Amino acid sequence: MIVYLVGAGPGDPGLITARGLELIRTCDVLVFDRLVARELVDEAPVGAMRIGRETLSQEEINRLLIELARAGRIVVRLKGGDPFLFGRGGEEVEALSAAGIRSEVVPGVSCLSAVPAAAGIPITHRGVSAQVTIAAGSGAGGALGLDLDALACAPGTLVLFMSLGRLDEIVDGLIARGKDPLTPAAVIASGTRAEQRTVVAALHKLPAAAVAASVVAPALVVIGDVVELADELDAAPSRSSSGNTSVMSRKPTVATMER
Amino acid sequence: MIVYLVGAGPGDPGLITARGLELIRTCDVLVFDRLVARELVDEAPVGAMRIGRETLSQEEINRLLIELARAGRIVVRLKGGDPFLFGRGGEEVEALSAAGIRSEVVPGVSCLSAVPAAAGIPITHRGVSAQVTIAAGSGAGGALGLDLDALACAPGTLVLFMSLGRLDEIVDGLIARGKDPLTPAAVIASGTRAEQRTVVAALHKLPAAAVAASVVAPALVVIGDVVELADELDAAPSRSSSGNTSVMSRKPTVATMER
Repeated sequence: MIVYLVGAGPGDPGLITARGLELIRTCDVLVFDRLVARELVDEAPVGAMRIGRETLSQEEINRLLIELARAGRIVVRLKGGDPFLFGRGGEEVEALSAAGIRSEVVPGVSCLSAVPAAAGIPITHRGVSAQVTIAAGSGAGGALGLDLDALACAPGTLVLFMSLGRLDEIVDGLIARGKDPLTPAAVIASGTRAEQRTVVAALHKLPAAAVAASVVAPALVVIGDVVELADELDAAPSRSSSGNTSVMSRKPTVATMER
Repeated sequence: MIVYLVGAGPGDPGLITARGLELIRTCDVLVFDRLVARELVDEAPVGAMRIGRETLSQEEINRLLIELARAGRIVVRLKGGDPFLFGRGGEEVEALSAAGIRSEVVPGVSCLSAVPAAAGIPITHRGVSAQVTIAAGSGAGGALGLDLDALACAPGTLVLFMSLGRLDEIVDGLIARGKDPLTPAAVIASGTRAEQRTVVAALHKLPAAAVAASVVAPALVVIGDVVELADELDAAPSRSSSGNTSVMSRKPTVATMER
């Protein structure tokens, strides 16, 4: 009895790990998140059961995994990004463990660095940023909200998961607590996928720029001087050079950086 | 002319991405970091040139990549972890870009979450930690040192890269700035590899515990309440081993918990 918790990576199906792909190809049952690439779901064996988790609560998923494992099925639980970085993997491991079922976690490429990379932004860069603070606007934290006081004074790069819906409030809160309104910032929607879109603006203009560009979740917010490196590392032709707001579209798969 | 910057992941060769492995298998030249798994270097084609970067400075690597690309070779630059998270990938992209050479970044699984996961520690966990701060004790930051004031007051989980050599000084600095000396903390050495070792201790005892256990770099330092979950989540008998082995499968990882 074992359940494999596998990180699917940030979106591009090529970014799953070799080990994760091998497990998908040999499972009996695949329980997958909504944002997992269809190409990965298609890698499960022809006879395998495929269960989308969309309609299930976290508690129902935990129960389902336990029941399938007890029934002797080889279960792969395929999660977007990395299971242990805002992926609630710990909760599933805990539930399995409490039921006496083994689990193996196969980490995935997190959106954290892969999504900014696909937009030409290294979240750390020599002489620019040697510290990164990550938080989530909703979801994984449970009762723990965003600590805006701490985020406003954190040096280096800020990366915010699941924050697009509260971007206005978060940006206002950061600026009210002393964050420079002119800090370079970006929203990257559907990062590493064919439909990737990046909006770059000074922090105080970011919410309006995101609305104007009609970007939708899933999206990652990056705040810090590293955002300016996108210009340097990635002069995408479609990018507007007027003002400090621009919208980029991207090719499929991972970032191709051209000068 | 294109150079592929590929993240090799945290150590376990099975944690390379499918796309990264495909590129290694079709390259002419593989330029690899010291900590990259030998199994991945062996995946390059028989006739491919394999260049260890050990003896080369960052500037020499940049020049080598440019010269090989100009000579028409398909170059894969294989880096430990993720190229853009303390991986200095941005510097290599900049140098290539300045020389008119395209690069494609294929992100890797960072040690950030994968290494704690292999020790049973989720760096975020509902109700325990919804924020993560990452910094490096040496290397990638260049002139930018650790900002101990900011680290000491950051809520949630702290993850420190390349900090084992300065652990004493860092821990003293954090405690002097108000960090609770009883905060649960861990050093995880050679994470995700067969020789993985984990030392768990209260923050103020961590440097001595690491010395007593003779752990050596590469190591990741994790500080925060999530470290306590290691006991709980590791309760399953053998959560990281698997019968499903192949060349790319991860070896069982054994966490040595010392309190």
